[in-house]
Order: sequence, then C-alpha cells, then structure tokens
Amino acid sequence: MPSRNLSADEPCPVARSVDLVGDRWSMLIVRDAFDGISRFSDFQRSLGMARNILSDRLRKLVDAGILETRAASDGSAYQEYVLTARGESLFPVVVALRQWGERHLFAKGEAHSQLVDKRAGRPLARMAPQAGDGRVLRAADTEVRKLR
Amino acid sequence: MPSRNLSADEPCPVARSVDLVGDRWSMLIVRDAFDGISRFSDFQRSLGMARNILSDRLRKLVDAGILETRAASDGSAYQEYVLTARGESLFPVVVALRQWGERHLFAKGEAHSQLVDKRAGRPLARMAPQAGDGRVLRAADTEVRKLR
Repeated sequence: MPSRNLSADEPCPVARSVDLVGDRWSMLIVRDAFDGISRFSDFQRSLGMARNILSDRLRKLVDAGILETRAASDGSAYQEYVLTARGESLFPVVVALRQWGERHLFAKGEAHSQLVDKRAGRPLARMAPQAGDGRVLRAADTEVRKLR
Repeated sequence: MPSRNLSADEPCPVARSVDLVGDRWSMLIVRDAFDGISRFSDFQRSLGMARNILSDRLRKLVDAGILETRAASDGSAYQEYVLTARGESLFPVVVALRQWGERHLFAKGEAHSQLVDKRAGRPLARMAPQAGDGRVLRAADTEVRKLR
C-alpha cells in the first residue's frame, strides 16, 4: 500500500486510483515508461517538464509502488526507472485513455501515433467493459453498490 | 474539438486525453456523473470540493464536450450536468481505473464499493487489452508507432 494516500479511507477504488495516477504528469510518465523510457533525462526530453516537477512525480510513483529504480542496464552510473508489476497492470488504463482520445480528440484524417499488436502489426480491439458472461456493458447496464 | 486544448498539436492520443480528464477532480466528477449525480450541490456534497474549483472543472468539462447542461428534470430552476455521448464513452477509462484500484490499493478483505452488472448482479469481467483476433495483450506484446 502506498504510504501517503490522500484517500486511504475512501471506499471507492476509482478515487484511490486517481489519487495516485490522476494527474497529467504522472500518467504521461507511466505512458513513457510503457514506451521503454527509463532515464531521468529521457523523461525530461520527452515531456518537457521542469526538473523539480519530474523529480517529484518520479518519487511519488516510486512511493506508490508503480515505478522502481534500478542501476542502469549499461553499467553506467545512471539510475533507471522501470514499471513494477503494479505499474504494468496500468496498461488497460493507458489503452482506454488512448482509445478515447483516438475516437474523440482528433479530426477526421488527422494523424496520431498508433498502438499496435506486435505480432499482427494491427491496432488493438476497442476495449469495452463486459459482464462475466462476455456481454458488452454500457454504463446504464451497471450500478455501483456502495458500502453501507 | 475542445476549444482550449494544451496539446492540440500533440500526436499522442493519451496526452490529449489526459489534458482533458487527467486531473483528480475532473475524473471524480465524471465518476459521479456516471453514478447519476447531476446537480452542483450534489457534486459538491459528494466530492467536498470548494465551490470555485467545482465551478471551474464543470465548465471545463462542458467546454470539452464531456458534460452538457440542461434544465432540471423536475421543472425547478436548477441546472443539471449530464454526460454527453463523448462523456459516456469514458466508461472504459473509469472501469479500468476502478479495477486497477480494486486489485492494488485495498488490503486483503478491505471493503470497497462494487460496480456490478445490473442483470446478473455480479462484478464485471476484468478488462484487458486485446488484439483484433481476441488474444489478450500485455504491454510487451504491443508497440507504439509514432508519426514520422
């Protein structure tokens, strides 16, 4: 469990998640980590962030168990930031954000980067919430059972 | 297209999405809207936000085409905020955030609210990115093709 969680007493899993990854920079750092970026200077180049903000967000992601540090793979003195298993399991969140953006935030014909299945070289299927038996569910087909 | 998009020239759909919904409050407002909350005072009660911040975030979500306003359904003078079709299609993002939180941010046996399929009364299947042919994909099975 993360040591500093604003909503540790919050019974909603969405709220706990957004407390950890619900800010622009954290999510873009996670996206870059999925893309194979691991060094401070490479995150900085990719994101154009101030060093102190990048430092702060990396530390928070490490504290939250989403990233971990390790010695650089090339034997240099650099430190690398890599996704933990917990961080890797944010993949569906990143893909869902990507697919929503692709559908709604690009003009027709406007180019965007594509996430493809390496084997087939094709874009992924569109993610959709499903019932246990595979029925695709819209929000109206579901309800939240709050704790009493 | 949103009129004010920090990353309108950003070819990454993840980046464009997080510019619109990548902050704690916006995502929790969207979550509450999925739960049927529609009035300013009800959002405020649910989220415990300062009025001016709630006002700002609601306006941004309306500007982004995620929420729209309408006259109150009970004929009163109140205004309601409801999800547009674009907003409704954030459902996979909210479910993915919820499922990540459920898996990683609660102690074993710790209770949390549950999202269930109304018909079966059961929790949803775990969302997973898939290839066009239905193979479940881990991040390592995919790659991002950037624009040249």
